[in-house]
Amino acid sequence: MKTALFGAGRIGKVHAASVQADPRSELVAVADVVPAAADALAQAFGIAARAADEILADPSVDAILVASSTDTHADLIEAALGAGKAVFCEKPIDLDLARALDVRRVALAQERPVMMGFNRRFDPNFAALKAALDAGEIGRGELLSVTSFDPAPPPVEYIKVSGGLFRDMTIHDFDMCAFLFGMPATVMAHGANLVDPAIGAAGDIDTGIVVLSYADGRMATIRNSRRAPYGYDQRVEVLGSKGLLGAENERETTLSKATAAGVVSAKPVHFFLERYMRAYAIEWAAFVDAVRDGKPVPATVQDGVNALALAEAANRSLSEGRPVALTPDMTGI
Amino acid sequence: MKTALFGAGRIGKVHAASVQADPRSELVAVADVVPAAADALAQAFGIAARAADEILADPSVDAILVASSTDTHADLIEAALGAGKAVFCEKPIDLDLARALDVRRVALAQERPVMMGFNRRFDPNFAALKAALDAGEIGRGELLSVTSFDPAPPPVEYIKVSGGLFRDMTIHDFDMCAFLFGMPATVMAHGANLVDPAIGAAGDIDTGIVVLSYADGRMATIRNSRRAPYGYDQRVEVLGSKGLLGAENERETTLSKATAAGVVSAKPVHFFLERYMRAYAIEWAAFVDAVRDGKPVPATVQDGVNALALAEAANRSLSEGRPVALTPDMTGI
Amino acid sequence: MKTALFGAGRIGKVHAASVQADPRSELVAVADVVPAAADALAQAFGIAARAADEILADPSVDAILVASSTDTHADLIEAALGAGKAVFCEKPIDLDLARALDVRRVALAQERPVMMGFNRRFDPNFAALKAALDAGEIGRGELLSVTSFDPAPPPVEYIKVSGGLFRDMTIHDFDMCAFLFGMPATVMAHGANLVDPAIGAAGDIDTGIVVLSYADGRMATIRNSRRAPYGYDQRVEVLGSKGLLGAENERETTLSKATAAGVVSAKPVHFFLERYMRAYAIEWAAFVDAVRDGKPVPATVQDGVNALALAEAANRSLSEGRPVALTPDMTGI
Amino acid sequence: MKTALFGAGRIGKVHAASVQADPRSELVAVADVVPAAADALAQAFGIAARAADEILADPSVDAILVASSTDTHADLIEAALGAGKAVFCEKPIDLDLARALDVRRVALAQERPVMMGFNRRFDPNFAALKAALDAGEIGRGELLSVTSFDPAPPPVEYIKVSGGLFRDMTIHDFDMCAFLFGMPATVMAHGANLVDPAIGAAGDIDTGIVVLSYADGRMATIRNSRRAPYGYDQRVEVLGSKGLLGAENERETTLSKATAAGVVSAKPVHFFLERYMRAYAIEWAAFVDAVRDGKPVPATVQDGVNALALAEAANRSLSEGRPVALTPDMTGI
Repeated sequence: MKTALFGAGRIGKVHAASVQADPRSELVAVADVVPAAADALAQAFGIAARAADEILADPSVDAILVASSTDTHADLIEAALGAGKAVFCEKPIDLDLARALDVRRVALAQERPVMMGFNRRFDPNFAALKAALDAGEIGRGELLSVTSFDPAPPPVEYIKVSGGLFRDMTIHDFDMCAFLFGMPATVMAHGANLVDPAIGAAGDIDTGIVVLSYADGRMATIRNSRRAPYGYDQRVEVLGSKGLLGAENERETTLSKATAAGVVSAKPVHFFLERYMRAYAIEWAAFVDAVRDGKPVPATVQDGVNALALAEAANRSLSEGRPVALTPDMTGI
Repeated sequence: MKTALFGAGRIGKVHAASVQADPRSELVAVADVVPAAADALAQAFGIAARAADEILADPSVDAILVASSTDTHADLIEAALGAGKAVFCEKPIDLDLARALDVRRVALAQERPVMMGFNRRFDPNFAALKAALDAGEIGRGELLSVTSFDPAPPPVEYIKVSGGLFRDMTIHDFDMCAFLFGMPATVMAHGANLVDPAIGAAGDIDTGIVVLSYADGRMATIRNSRRAPYGYDQRVEVLGSKGLLGAENERETTLSKATAAGVVSAKPVHFFLERYMRAYAIEWAAFVDAVRDGKPVPATVQDGVNALALAEAANRSLSEGRPVALTPDMTGI
Repeated sequence: MKTALFGAGRIGKVHAASVQADPRSELVAVADVVPAAADALAQAFGIAARAADEILADPSVDAILVASSTDTHADLIEAALGAGKAVFCEKPIDLDLARALDVRRVALAQERPVMMGFNRRFDPNFAALKAALDAGEIGRGELLSVTSFDPAPPPVEYIKVSGGLFRDMTIHDFDMCAFLFGMPATVMAHGANLVDPAIGAAGDIDTGIVVLSYADGRMATIRNSRRAPYGYDQRVEVLGSKGLLGAENERETTLSKATAAGVVSAKPVHFFLERYMRAYAIEWAAFVDAVRDGKPVPATVQDGVNALALAEAANRSLSEGRPVALTPDMTGI
Repeated sequence: MKTALFGAGRIGKVHAASVQADPRSELVAVADVVPAAADALAQAFGIAARAADEILADPSVDAILVASSTDTHADLIEAALGAGKAVFCEKPIDLDLARALDVRRVALAQERPVMMGFNRRFDPNFAALKAALDAGEIGRGELLSVTSFDPAPPPVEYIKVSGGLFRDMTIHDFDMCAFLFGMPATVMAHGANLVDPAIGAAGDIDTGIVVLSYADGRMATIRNSRRAPYGYDQRVEVLGSKGLLGAENERETTLSKATAAGVVSAKPVHFFLERYMRAYAIEWAAFVDAVRDGKPVPATVQDGVNALALAEAANRSLSEGRPVALTPDMTGI
């Protein structure tokens, strides 16, 4: 599967490695608005940096991997689909829900696979939790709890263009809830600026709690913070009618040291690249499965819209101080 | 310290054992509305079952331990104080907040110690967490999370007189939040009837999520269920500016078994008596400290009012579907 | 069961509390070579300190609890049995194997129960491991590993009269191996003086490894040290044909703290009294079961002889630098 | 660094992937006594299968990676060194200690780096343990314990040519002891045939315990079994004067499931390829560091000889039933 990469930044490099590591796919071109970045990555893989238009016009290219900045996602998905390419796109579709709903309509109107990069669905720990839940190992799921703390806040310049905590960071947790429990009826959001005053000055929060209520009584909580000095904290827990499933953090090593001062173990792996390294490779394999073998796309544009609709509802809830209902116009379904 | 026990039921027996185990206190009398129950417990301890009035009139009795049914707590506290006795009373003061506020006024108007039986404050795990938090070991506390699942729901007959989930079960968790973080500004409650339809038919919920928001931005979540088939699940976690504190469940044993089917460890201890056995003894010692040595009462009538006010706010929030603010008239402060 | 205690030291006090806590037994007298010690303990329990001879001659006394110094054990067991009393005796029977074999003959020649205080058999963790092993949960046991480290070495004055590491400390581990795997064919011992030079100067070792080889090919290792700065380290592990059983240390609390410096958990409980508090109570109940209800004695004089024979073999192995076979003259069986 | 691979079997493929993944090295040729195997692997990497002689004669080849059968190692190391190549060779050098000592002399007589594939030294868990030990974090190391159980025994045909448990399997554990504690003074070995009677019929053991005694009193134990139904069990523990270091198994996932049946966690990763995947990559990077940058070789031919000498001593100890001293003629030092 001949694949072209749009976006030669950090996450683009991660995906490029996955493309090359899978014997069924091959990286054939790279484009970036910063030509030097495109050239450097292209050179490392022995391929060519090309203009985006040229790549889209090349009939030998099977798939486009969109890892460019968020504001380009929607246009690139549409352009790639228009050119008959399969598309893998990093989340989110767009910061604007209406624009995402446009892309959804475009995607529904044609048949090429489009997959959103919700990498956590492919984390072996969370995937094992999902499998056990779906197999009924704890009966019916009732209370879902997602913990998601970043090790440290990003620069405030990033915050300003991020779309805010719920669309930038919680979006992954909204998708995890949708992945495990489906779409809720209402969203209640709480937030505070506790980590960095500059984030508050930029109009954003850095600490949040979101409660999702489902029509059948199930409930989910998401806990977010931009700061966890001990590492990247990514946990999921589900209480069911017959038991409890929990996926814990991965640790840097399995070493422990017991002294008079206590028993010290290693910290959680510090960064998303380490934690989700395996997930990125599995995710890419799933995309190749979909494009080459017609298997179902495991993270669709609808999933992308759903997560964004939950973020939108959370933002409204936070500003209005009350639960907000999800409505069909928010998700198209 | 000569101590008389009012209430010869299950929790009364637990406390009676603590009284006798502490060399500084002595059980001298027991009263119960069921004479046979009082006689049986009295006989086991080689003491006399007596009428409540008679006990209160006996100047040799130093302290009254109230472990009778909830609807008698307020009257007994007032009567015991009127008789000049120190009082230890099981939670709650009363199911009615106004009545609890009455008791608060009575208690404030005199000097004998009154202590509420919030046993979890004395659990060595939670007490160690509190000590570490207060010592600044994780900087400033920001996000508090309390998990409190009972192993199995009580009979629906109990539910009907319990005052509802928030006043019966969550009251302990409200106190834990107040113990660790103080009193919040607002309470948002979510609930569902997922465990036993009979509980719903009785007008109660059996599954709940409560979010407490503090004036300074800190937040706390409480997760409750009346059913955890793997045992009594009692955990507390605090994210702070410099780290994370977590108090996990105690397990039945430290045995693990690794086979082709996985690695199996022991379950959490199954019942509150096992989990909090040490806490009950430590709690009683703290009461003796207060009565004999004038040390501060570590769980006051005000604490009892506070927890009840949070339950009241949660009930209002649940019925109105919006956050409810704590007001001075609810706590007297 | 009217019980008299011989020996009012630390371990005597522990047992006295167990006697009183069991509603079926009652402490009626105490004797000690130090009259003040006997008086203090007797007073705390509201009973009388009496001379040993007088106690033995008192027909109302049912059982003798021997917790005096090791060199008195053998004589007191024989005297108590001669007086028709049931006997519970702290380990070891004697430091001299021949003397222990004498006691064994005396005990076999009469019918009163004699139980040795191998408390670790009653630790809930090790007892659960034994139950799982006997139930075949890991198939056939093949490799047994016992880790037993004391938090800190005793004073060298104690070492000098202790009988040496193998008879004083490893004796518990020998019994654990016999409890779980039965008696081996050969013993190979290794030892070193690494902790305290004064222990070496006193002719003893403070660090030891013993390998037991069974006639059917099973093997067991014991690891001992007089020093584990992080607490009392008591673990047992069995590899079987179908899996692995492991009993871990009990921790002081379940608290953990994650910071940039790592994840810190509580240490193992620091001392044998804390770790084996529950075991002592269960052990005593088993003795009462045997005396009152005729149940089998779960730690017999033969068990005491067996552990001592293993210590004797280990001493010979260490001095001769070769494996030593257990022979019938060493155990009487 | 242009690298040629000798041996296109399972472990050869693992190393080939490491070579390609390191940007500093490149796989340029492959040789195997089974031409089809060489062709298949060569094709997968887009390179050529060539005859070994031809490769050795090619001056453009910088390094030879020996992953062929054990009986070819010694000859290939010598041949490669004779051709002026750097050599990375899988353990062991040879099953015969005398032959390994020959290779040692050849390697010492020239300057090209030769590195032995003791992959466990590069496992992040064990490497972290080594670093903590060397940094004095637990004071002086005193008792080392290595647990090494394979998930299932190999076919008996493999056993017959393996050189026996100590040279085939324990060799890794001997190296781990040497890596952490250096070379001991004496070796005492115990063994049994408990897993598969066919292994016993082939003259080998499948279960072993080895005790290493050091001149300064330190001791180490190795526990081996060819069968651990729950997975590949690889643990190391060191008791030191100030604490305990332990490196635990890596688990398949971090998922746990709590139900009425207990708390089930994932098993250790099942096979050496999964457990040591990271180690193989780090190991290769260390070899490239040595060849390109002149850094010290972290696992030398001397280390290979040392591990083999310990295996030889263990075999003698097992057959003679006594501790066997390491002598300079066994290690060349």
